[in-house]
Amino acid sequence: MTHLSDIGEDALIQRLVRLVPLDPSPAAGPGDDCAVVDPGPGHSKLQLLKTDALVEHVHFLPEAAPRAVGWKACARVMSDFAAMGGQPERFLVTLALPPHTPVAWVENLYLGIGECLRHFGGVLAGGETSSVPPSSAAVISIAATGSVLRHHLTLRSTAKPGHALLVTGTLGGSRHAKHLTFSPRLREAAWLVSHFKPAAMMDLSDGLARDLPRLAAASGCGFVVEPSALPLTAGCTVEQALGDGEDFEMLLALEDARVDELLAAWCDVFPELALTRIGRLVEAGAGETLAGGWEHFAPGLGIKH
Amino acid sequence: MTHLSDIGEDALIQRLVRLVPLDPSPAAGPGDDCAVVDPGPGHSKLQLLKTDALVEHVHFLPEAAPRAVGWKACARVMSDFAAMGGQPERFLVTLALPPHTPVAWVENLYLGIGECLRHFGGVLAGGETSSVPPSSAAVISIAATGSVLRHHLTLRSTAKPGHALLVTGTLGGSRHAKHLTFSPRLREAAWLVSHFKPAAMMDLSDGLARDLPRLAAASGCGFVVEPSALPLTAGCTVEQALGDGEDFEMLLALEDARVDELLAAWCDVFPELALTRIGRLVEAGAGETLAGGWEHFAPGLGIKH
Repeated sequence: MTHLSDIGEDALIQRLVRLVPLDPSPAAGPGDDCAVVDPGPGHSKLQLLKTDALVEHVHFLPEAAPRAVGWKACARVMSDFAAMGGQPERFLVTLALPPHTPVAWVENLYLGIGECLRHFGGVLAGGETSSVPPSSAAVISIAATGSVLRHHLTLRSTAKPGHALLVTGTLGGSRHAKHLTFSPRLREAAWLVSHFKPAAMMDLSDGLARDLPRLAAASGCGFVVEPSALPLTAGCTVEQALGDGEDFEMLLALEDARVDELLAAWCDVFPELALTRIGRLVEAGAGETLAGGWEHFAPGLGIKH
Repeated sequence: MTHLSDIGEDALIQRLVRLVPLDPSPAAGPGDDCAVVDPGPGHSKLQLLKTDALVEHVHFLPEAAPRAVGWKACARVMSDFAAMGGQPERFLVTLALPPHTPVAWVENLYLGIGECLRHFGGVLAGGETSSVPPSSAAVISIAATGSVLRHHLTLRSTAKPGHALLVTGTLGGSRHAKHLTFSPRLREAAWLVSHFKPAAMMDLSDGLARDLPRLAAASGCGFVVEPSALPLTAGCTVEQALGDGEDFEMLLALEDARVDELLAAWCDVFPELALTRIGRLVEAGAGETLAGGWEHFAPGLGIKH
């Protein structure tokens, strides 16, 4: 019998989407950071839909501060809206918790969700609570709607060979703290789509080694990365930058001729956040491959962070 | 230290919603079956948002057919759209599963989701998968958007003393099978809001004894129920009809003077589904109380069904 640990997350999703009715005329193909709903030609904004989940022992340890866990649960979804060039709107929080969970833990979780909503925009629109058996991991699932101006929508699938690849911030080492405290790049992405609209963009959640091949494949491209150019978090190796995951930085593709102008303008607007050219897209079949990154159902894996 | 099992679900939610920013001008107050988003006065339809979760050992047993589990996960959300007078649109499925889960189990789960979507309308718009630790319960969380014509929107909070109370179908005994195979009352609710718009409506998920007081409280009313009038599922007692939960029938309030006309018309349109007057709303503080029904975090509770 085949188990999830035998095939992995991407193959699983490909098998599942064949079994259900899909949007017959989606505003964006499946597999992007968010689902995109087009309300019709008279509307300047598209709706974004996203769901995400945090699992105890997988995305956070039982001893993690619940306020930081709430922030992370909310910020992960915000990061996906950023990757599409959009903004968050309404959030639905589903909690599946053991009955012995302290009320104070849940209140602090919500305080963290509230902090993130106040900081980046968005309101709580609803929720659901359920018990899980006493020995089960807590699960926090957040679904949200967002919006994006039609001409700001940025997909994974629209880059071309020759485009430069850039990342915001630094990569690797998020498990030491950043995975619980990161800032979703909403402000930076909003500036990018207004001033230097990327040909493609996504957020880095499973590690560059896993996410870059997804962007390249969605765009029908190969890729080349210059390891010595990778912006490493202090104390991290190239392997960590490629594989640790949960960086929640933006990976973007841009016409090569515009990169110098972008980098100069970026320094003025975001002087404290790196923006680094790390490589380029090439023709499909050319380029290289990368090993590493996070696979949810891989056998023998422990906690994500 | 206070735990979830000490205060219960309703009290928990009241404490949590104070900690986060809420929609400053909601189209419906919190606590209804769905969140309601008003896109503005030029739009004839309102958007509905809903999230819900199924937990192994709580909402289904490990030996349950995964196809039925998928149906149930999807149909529960549909039932909430029905309760608002609306229709389902786009679904987001979040799976948190142990790595040893057979791929065939997940495929059958999705087949059940697909069956429900094809039967009642709605498409899959996105999803997310995560592992849980090997000893943890599987969690299936479904968030969805729906829509409702502005003049069809039916809330819990708009009934008045004197209104009659009615329920569709029969109550009790859902654990024997119906909780996995029920039909959400979308068609029936759509007919009701078009022809005999209820003063208030909700779906019965936690048992009449728990859900009716919620509708009455939301409307600022008390209630009186005639136990001998309750439509019992064959073989069930009044206690089961009040407390088993997961009936997924509609509970509605209607002006007393229109009930006879409704019951006569209903028989012609839905001859195979009961619609039964079970009591009435009264002034707040008058009326009775009911004991029983499902409480997620109650100590010592086993599986919901």
